[in-house]
Amino acid sequence: MNIRPLQDRIIVKRIEAEEKTASGIIIPDTAKEKPMEGNVMAVGPGKALDNGNTIVPTVKAGDKVLFSKYAGTEVKIDGQEYIIMREDDILGVIEG
Amino acid sequence: MNIRPLQDRIIVKRIEAEEKTASGIIIPDTAKEKPMEGNVMAVGPGKALDNGNTIVPTVKAGDKVLFSKYAGTEVKIDGQEYIIMREDDILGVIEG
Amino acid sequence: MNIRPLQDRIIVKRIEAEEKTASGIIIPDTAKEKPMEGNVMAVGPGKALDNGNTIVPTVKAGDKVLFSKYAGTEVKIDGQEYIIMREDDILGVIEG
Amino acid sequence: MNIRPLQDRIIVKRIEAEEKTASGIIIPDTAKEKPMEGNVMAVGPGKALDNGNTIVPTVKAGDKVLFSKYAGTEVKIDGQEYIIMREDDILGVIEG
Amino acid sequence: MNIRPLQDRIIVKRIEAEEKTASGIIIPDTAKEKPMEGNVMAVGPGKALDNGNTIVPTVKAGDKVLFSKYAGTEVKIDGQEYIIMREDDILGVIEG
Amino acid sequence: MNIRPLQDRIIVKRIEAEEKTASGIIIPDTAKEKPMEGNVMAVGPGKALDNGNTIVPTVKAGDKVLFSKYAGTEVKIDGQEYIIMREDDILGVIEG
Amino acid sequence: MNIRPLQDRIIVKRIEAEEKTASGIIIPDTAKEKPMEGNVMAVGPGKALDNGNTIVPTVKAGDKVLFSKYAGTEVKIDGQEYIIMREDDILGVIEG
Repeated sequence: MNIRPLQDRIIVKRIEAEEKTASGIIIPDTAKEKPMEGNVMAVGPGKALDNGNTIVPTVKAGDKVLFSKYAGTEVKIDGQEYIIMREDDILGVIEG
Repeated sequence: MNIRPLQDRIIVKRIEAEEKTASGIIIPDTAKEKPMEGNVMAVGPGKALDNGNTIVPTVKAGDKVLFSKYAGTEVKIDGQEYIIMREDDILGVIEG
Repeated sequence: MNIRPLQDRIIVKRIEAEEKTASGIIIPDTAKEKPMEGNVMAVGPGKALDNGNTIVPTVKAGDKVLFSKYAGTEVKIDGQEYIIMREDDILGVIEG
Repeated sequence: MNIRPLQDRIIVKRIEAEEKTASGIIIPDTAKEKPMEGNVMAVGPGKALDNGNTIVPTVKAGDKVLFSKYAGTEVKIDGQEYIIMREDDILGVIEG
Repeated sequence: MNIRPLQDRIIVKRIEAEEKTASGIIIPDTAKEKPMEGNVMAVGPGKALDNGNTIVPTVKAGDKVLFSKYAGTEVKIDGQEYIIMREDDILGVIEG
Repeated sequence: MNIRPLQDRIIVKRIEAEEKTASGIIIPDTAKEKPMEGNVMAVGPGKALDNGNTIVPTVKAGDKVLFSKYAGTEVKIDGQEYIIMREDDILGVIEG
Repeated sequence: MNIRPLQDRIIVKRIEAEEKTASGIIIPDTAKEKPMEGNVMAVGPGKALDNGNTIVPTVKAGDKVLFSKYAGTEVKIDGQEYIIMREDDILGVIEG
């Protein structure tokens, strides 16, 4: 992907909720609520502070993250949907 | 649990309200109001400050905590429900 | 009471309004308006500041305090009702 | 009065609007609008700052002050009505 | 006038809009909109800052000033109407 | 013009939208939307900061500027309409 | 273009959504939702900080950028439409 996020912005590709059902049952759209998982595609250099420093992001490209449903702005790049959000919108990193 | 919370976020597993009735009476859903108890499952590294420091959280995994009903975001991980909230949403630690 | 409040939070046990009528007249519920008195049960360590310091609370357990009606969050612990509020919600200390 | 206000709070006893009509005409309640006069009964130690200092209040007990109608919280102590407000709600001191 | 304004507050006596019509035509009340002129009667010592300094006001008693219609709080002192506003509500000083 | 703006305020005389139509067509009032051009008439000394410094404005009297439609407060001085806005309401300077 | 943006403002010329459909199909207006691409035309000197420093913008004239739909203010200059936004409204830079 050829987008360079600014400041503390992070580009995330959402993992579709369907992939998460253990069995083969399809969840209807209205049931797919609340936080979501995604893969971090790109990370900005961090938030520039008034004192001249930068807060380096604690997530990196490749991380699998949890974020709240209304975080960020959806973007369509080359036919793919991404979400550009601030690092602060990321709730946690899914490990292992 | 394999979620690493960021910043000052804390993952809490709610203790169901039913467990709290001394007698065996079941409280109907509309009566289960107000603050709640939970167990801290994971704690972020703390809030990064503009001066480069971090405020280390004062709760730790294993603590039993009180938090307000509308704190944080509910997350479902491996079929279990958790709440990811900021340390500031925690009202107190239940001791002993 | 076995709750340790965090930061600048304070646990207060409200003094019921009925106890305040000089004569024996019972005040109906709708007449019990505005600020309230309570006893401080526990006090947090104080608000952690960005500069690393802590503002030590100026009230202590045992103080009788005035607070505004909508301050804090009501909590029920061991069948007793308490209010967990921030020190800033306390209007004054009743002395003597 | 036995209330010790915290921080930058100030306890004021309102001067009833009726006392202010030069002639003997009684002003009906709906006509008693806008700012009000009162006597300062007690003054807190001042607002504690993050840098460890305190802003010492510039009004003192005994001052006659002007304040806006919606300032502070009304309190009834020993059958007397007072208003506990922040120093910032005081518009000016009436002198001489 | 015997009011001493606190902090960055300024007492202004409004110049009635009627005085501003060049010809003798009386402007009806609904037409008297928007910013207003007034004479500064008294000026507070300036806003106390957290670092211990004070921002000295840049207007002084006697200045003729422009201010927005909804600035400050109207006060009636000795039968005269004044407006107590913050220095920041003053748009400009009318000179010469 | 004899108004001295305070702080970071700037007095702008709007250039009427009609002057901007290349052809001779008159634009009706409802069509004159969005940002506007104006000439800077006077500039305040700049915003006083808490650290004692002043941010000197980067526009000067005589500059032709773009500003958003809802910026500032309209003032009528000597029968002329002006807008008193903060420097921050100015979007850009039209050059050449 | 002869506009010099102030502070951290940036002038962007939107790339029309139609240009983005791979095939020749025209997207109707209501379907052209969400973030947008544009070319940076001019960049301000950066945001002046209270400590006297300036945060130099990290985008430059010529960059192709993504921004949210409701960012900034639309301006018409010499018959061309531009958007003047703050650097913070820019989500990312499209590279390569």
